[in-house]
Amino acid sequence: MKRVQVIGAHSADFVWRAGGAVAKAVSLGGVAEVIALSYGERGESGELWKEDGQTVENVKRVRHGEAERAAGHLGATFKCLDFGDYPLDVDRERLLEIAEAIRAFAPDVLITHTAVDPFNPDHPVAYGAVDRARSLAAGAGVSSAFATIRPPQLFLFEPHQPELCAFTPTVHVDITNVWEAKIAAMGEMQAQQYLQTYYAQRGEQRGNHARRASGLSEVRYGESFMRVLPEVVEQL
Amino acid sequence: MKRVQVIGAHSADFVWRAGGAVAKAVSLGGVAEVIALSYGERGESGELWKEDGQTVENVKRVRHGEAERAAGHLGATFKCLDFGDYPLDVDRERLLEIAEAIRAFAPDVLITHTAVDPFNPDHPVAYGAVDRARSLAAGAGVSSAFATIRPPQLFLFEPHQPELCAFTPTVHVDITNVWEAKIAAMGEMQAQQYLQTYYAQRGEQRGNHARRASGLSEVRYGESFMRVLPEVVEQL
Amino acid sequence: MKRVQVIGAHSADFVWRAGGAVAKAVSLGGVAEVIALSYGERGESGELWKEDGQTVENVKRVRHGEAERAAGHLGATFKCLDFGDYPLDVDRERLLEIAEAIRAFAPDVLITHTAVDPFNPDHPVAYGAVDRARSLAAGAGVSSAFATIRPPQLFLFEPHQPELCAFTPTVHVDITNVWEAKIAAMGEMQAQQYLQTYYAQRGEQRGNHARRASGLSEVRYGESFMRVLPEVVEQL
Amino acid sequence: MKRVQVIGAHSADFVWRAGGAVAKAVSLGGVAEVIALSYGERGESGELWKEDGQTVENVKRVRHGEAERAAGHLGATFKCLDFGDYPLDVDRERLLEIAEAIRAFAPDVLITHTAVDPFNPDHPVAYGAVDRARSLAAGAGVSSAFATIRPPQLFLFEPHQPELCAFTPTVHVDITNVWEAKIAAMGEMQAQQYLQTYYAQRGEQRGNHARRASGLSEVRYGESFMRVLPEVVEQL
Amino acid sequence: MKRVQVIGAHSADFVWRAGGAVAKAVSLGGVAEVIALSYGERGESGELWKEDGQTVENVKRVRHGEAERAAGHLGATFKCLDFGDYPLDVDRERLLEIAEAIRAFAPDVLITHTAVDPFNPDHPVAYGAVDRARSLAAGAGVSSAFATIRPPQLFLFEPHQPELCAFTPTVHVDITNVWEAKIAAMGEMQAQQYLQTYYAQRGEQRGNHARRASGLSEVRYGESFMRVLPEVVEQL
Amino acid sequence: MKRVQVIGAHSADFVWRAGGAVAKAVSLGGVAEVIALSYGERGESGELWKEDGQTVENVKRVRHGEAERAAGHLGATFKCLDFGDYPLDVDRERLLEIAEAIRAFAPDVLITHTAVDPFNPDHPVAYGAVDRARSLAAGAGVSSAFATIRPPQLFLFEPHQPELCAFTPTVHVDITNVWEAKIAAMGEMQAQQYLQTYYAQRGEQRGNHARRASGLSEVRYGESFMRVLPEVVEQL
Repeated sequence: MKRVQVIGAHSADFVWRAGGAVAKAVSLGGVAEVIALSYGERGESGELWKEDGQTVENVKRVRHGEAERAAGHLGATFKCLDFGDYPLDVDRERLLEIAEAIRAFAPDVLITHTAVDPFNPDHPVAYGAVDRARSLAAGAGVSSAFATIRPPQLFLFEPHQPELCAFTPTVHVDITNVWEAKIAAMGEMQAQQYLQTYYAQRGEQRGNHARRASGLSEVRYGESFMRVLPEVVEQL
Repeated sequence: MKRVQVIGAHSADFVWRAGGAVAKAVSLGGVAEVIALSYGERGESGELWKEDGQTVENVKRVRHGEAERAAGHLGATFKCLDFGDYPLDVDRERLLEIAEAIRAFAPDVLITHTAVDPFNPDHPVAYGAVDRARSLAAGAGVSSAFATIRPPQLFLFEPHQPELCAFTPTVHVDITNVWEAKIAAMGEMQAQQYLQTYYAQRGEQRGNHARRASGLSEVRYGESFMRVLPEVVEQL
Repeated sequence: MKRVQVIGAHSADFVWRAGGAVAKAVSLGGVAEVIALSYGERGESGELWKEDGQTVENVKRVRHGEAERAAGHLGATFKCLDFGDYPLDVDRERLLEIAEAIRAFAPDVLITHTAVDPFNPDHPVAYGAVDRARSLAAGAGVSSAFATIRPPQLFLFEPHQPELCAFTPTVHVDITNVWEAKIAAMGEMQAQQYLQTYYAQRGEQRGNHARRASGLSEVRYGESFMRVLPEVVEQL
Repeated sequence: MKRVQVIGAHSADFVWRAGGAVAKAVSLGGVAEVIALSYGERGESGELWKEDGQTVENVKRVRHGEAERAAGHLGATFKCLDFGDYPLDVDRERLLEIAEAIRAFAPDVLITHTAVDPFNPDHPVAYGAVDRARSLAAGAGVSSAFATIRPPQLFLFEPHQPELCAFTPTVHVDITNVWEAKIAAMGEMQAQQYLQTYYAQRGEQRGNHARRASGLSEVRYGESFMRVLPEVVEQL
Repeated sequence: MKRVQVIGAHSADFVWRAGGAVAKAVSLGGVAEVIALSYGERGESGELWKEDGQTVENVKRVRHGEAERAAGHLGATFKCLDFGDYPLDVDRERLLEIAEAIRAFAPDVLITHTAVDPFNPDHPVAYGAVDRARSLAAGAGVSSAFATIRPPQLFLFEPHQPELCAFTPTVHVDITNVWEAKIAAMGEMQAQQYLQTYYAQRGEQRGNHARRASGLSEVRYGESFMRVLPEVVEQL
Repeated sequence: MKRVQVIGAHSADFVWRAGGAVAKAVSLGGVAEVIALSYGERGESGELWKEDGQTVENVKRVRHGEAERAAGHLGATFKCLDFGDYPLDVDRERLLEIAEAIRAFAPDVLITHTAVDPFNPDHPVAYGAVDRARSLAAGAGVSSAFATIRPPQLFLFEPHQPELCAFTPTVHVDITNVWEAKIAAMGEMQAQQYLQTYYAQRGEQRGNHARRASGLSEVRYGESFMRVLPEVVEQL
């Protein structure tokens, strides 16, 4: 029973990249929270802006609803820090706000973007902020002047073009028995039909990779992550 | 309850680098086998050669006894393929012999050297052979003309100078409750007093690193490994 | 109008990984030759071995037919050096045989495996041999004692799990208008239904990546390659 | 016929590093624009400051003239955003200014500094800003709230000490027939006689490298670049 | 006789990581200065905060005393720029302050943190600032508008978990004959008993590594560093 | 006063890549030996083969004379193991022959090729053999069954296209006062006029890099090397 926290740059990132892992953790008794640093209202909501008389408030409202319903399918809560996007900026105050969100939730597992993404100006900014906020929340491993939490494990979720983002999968999560929940969550992102197909295929392929790596023939769908820090185990 | 197989270039490698992980797996109900590709009779047995009238047969006999007793402390069996050392060579026939040993034991966990070691001419050869033999034993993930096993997880154990061997720990094993067994196993290597001190300190330090990574204050001693292939998990 | 040569470890490798690029080059007036170092008769023909009374000669005969028909769909010729597989070994004599094949065909474009593949014992061996044979065929850039050819451009085709094979795409080939030929070629590999689905999905995804990288909305299907050596161009 | 945009930290960077590629593109019917983020008035204009009564306005004026005349020899226009140097800082507003410059010119080819340069405090800052501005100008590959352009190809030009800047050439441009124009452009940088010799030699050496890579004996002078993103081609 | 300057994020960093190298340089006639960017008053002074009525001023006072006495044991001076910690921020003004400190001391040898440290939010910030300040102080290798110094050699000292910080030792300093001074300096950090043991063991191990690398059996204790820039020597 | 040993794949490699460092060491009282694994009689002697009635024995004789005279200009001795080239092969017996040559000379400094060279089939083979032979000659840092030498420092000399060979200079040797000797040595390679120009320019550029790195304005000519193992020093 784990506490899982996903922090993405834009409000839809978590669905494609970690929806299955979130649903799986919840199905095993865990608790999950999704935090978006922005609504992606400028960079990733173009379909909405094609409507006459569209306003930024309305775009955010629509995006909030989509993300909240998607999180609901997965069993997670959703909130947005609304920092704005394209470009996303994180100053000292916002960094401390992220650190406080991590400290408040005290996750076992923290998931965010890769450090590199040549096709997105906001993803690396989100990575840098979450990585640093995690250290602030967990402290230096010695006593500090502020409250700290047990250091959460840090994972990077799969970017759109993994090889260009220095993403090497080190963990495949078997999401076979929560696949329908991920499909449902992706279905809420109505303007992004193509990505639904893309990430459905990706889930099949990661399932194939997981079978190859483990010999477990019952895995049908997978999601892949890159572990940043060593894990501590009882045995290999 | 796992099957653990350690394959090292010389007969003492497993003690310093994986003795704790072997003992821990056995203590949890697992089965462990240690295979040495050589006795290290030329490169790592100089103390024995200082004795008058020493012969290569006697050096191998002494080294076999040490390794067997050390493995005994850890709960593992020991055998040596006796390929010779300094330099260790692995031709096609020997490669197939290693593959057959892996197929016969069918490990869940397979542990060997790093691919790089600028201070040792045999360690990278052992890595190359074990890595390739593993693929031969496990097959291509499709049906083959020969019997195959479920692909074992591959780990690299800690070399003497990790940063020079491209070794980055990705897993720390908590070996606190088998520490005495590792100490006893190391104690069998009588001519290598210094290494006993060196790896006892290393165990403490890896314990410290494991505490820092996990926040688990009860870990006193650790051993560190580098996972080569993705793992497949039920949740992050 | 280019001369394209693909050299793979096993007789089916070229279909999944470079079938589109071969067909495209031929459709533009080029000439293509496929060379297999083995038939993959041991490691990748398990379905055939399930038949009673199967013999290695018959497996090779069947595999030859499949590869030849697949190459035919793409407009290429096929031949196999029949070095054996699992494990594939390349000694000095075989190395010179590969070099001679390169020298004889004098390709503009030479395509082979990645240098790393943790799930296959033969692919890295093929890479090493082709890379070295290419240097032997092209010479040192100065006069030599033997005939040399103009240095072919060297590309690596996409492995099954790119991120684990240090594969970063640097070139996407638009294979939209030869897609049917690739589908037909893949269809010849009757025992490998799953791979047909897998690489059909991959073609769509690489098409998506190509659109993202270029903005060219007409690209539907792509194949991705990693260029090893600098290209020389008239302008950027 | 391509649109080429070069963005450098200081007003002279483009001459040494991309002068040939700019002139070549123009000679083939293309259009080229050079943008400097600063005049290098503090860090790279020491000769001018040796004159009595020198002022920063006058240094900028001289540097502007040199860069404009050099660009003229190459067939390009020149403008400077005048952000100041040593250190160069790019805040949110300046980032958007660079993005707007990219959007306005809509280049096919965008050229800037490497991400690493241990001998220069401003070059990595310029890289970071241009890389991010390019993503902002091109968008996420989906519809956005703002106008976007077709994603330009991104190239890094050659730094002074390539191996220390993680620069690996992936493209050599044959600049043989515009060599005189590059010599003339470099000649405008009167206070930097040594660099004229240095980059003239470099042009010869890159020509040698281009001949070695391609076998094209007619290449005499080259300029080398590192491509950041995959290209999309009709054939390999 | 060299001028050595160590710049750390927090006031105790220099003791564990470079105390020996500082003492050794001083023992050979050199001059050493330690600069701390902060007192580590928030992140690394938790023991002090356990006292009732503790204030930030008092924590800084205590930390100043410890660092000053430790530096005294090593023969160095100590000063703190007091920028605050957890998080440490370095804006333009502070960057210029660090550059001025480097220019004023004009070190032959400059030592700071690694660029990566997943367990500390401030160490990478310190690296980035010192690296950039060094370029500002030394200039571009051409005349500039401001006074410059001879470029100091840049070294990174050993982080707590070297393999996770991309730290590869390239220089071992033999600190055998100043070992007592380092022990005394570490002893001033009274609240950090464990680190005294940890770094004492580390000194032994680095001595072992230095013996292995050099064959010099008289080296008992070592400290390891990573050289960032090429050195210029009279002979290899 | 150091003992310097250079081991190259072909008889001319040492001249271009380490001629200055050899001459410098000798000028400072050292002793230098050059070993060639082959005469480069097939791959790098094409000019000689243009003569009617040429024989391999005569080509080797000519190449021996050139290399011996070049070594003479530098103050070194020359010998060739005559293993043949294009391709160069090193089996177990030859490996031991190289190890014996290292053991016999007992160098302080050992210099060879880079591990990667996409334009040469023999250079990486030479690297692998020398690296392994060095470990065999120096032993494992513990007593062995055979005589061992103090571990020599290992350096890689500059390949023709450094960035493509993973060559990053870490040491520049100031060869200003032995420049004429290097020029004379290069002049013996009469058929390779172009390389004389190429490496003369390279010497100037490396002198420039050395000045930039050190601020030592008196360095006019340099040669660059990559150190493989940590050095042990008295101070930074």
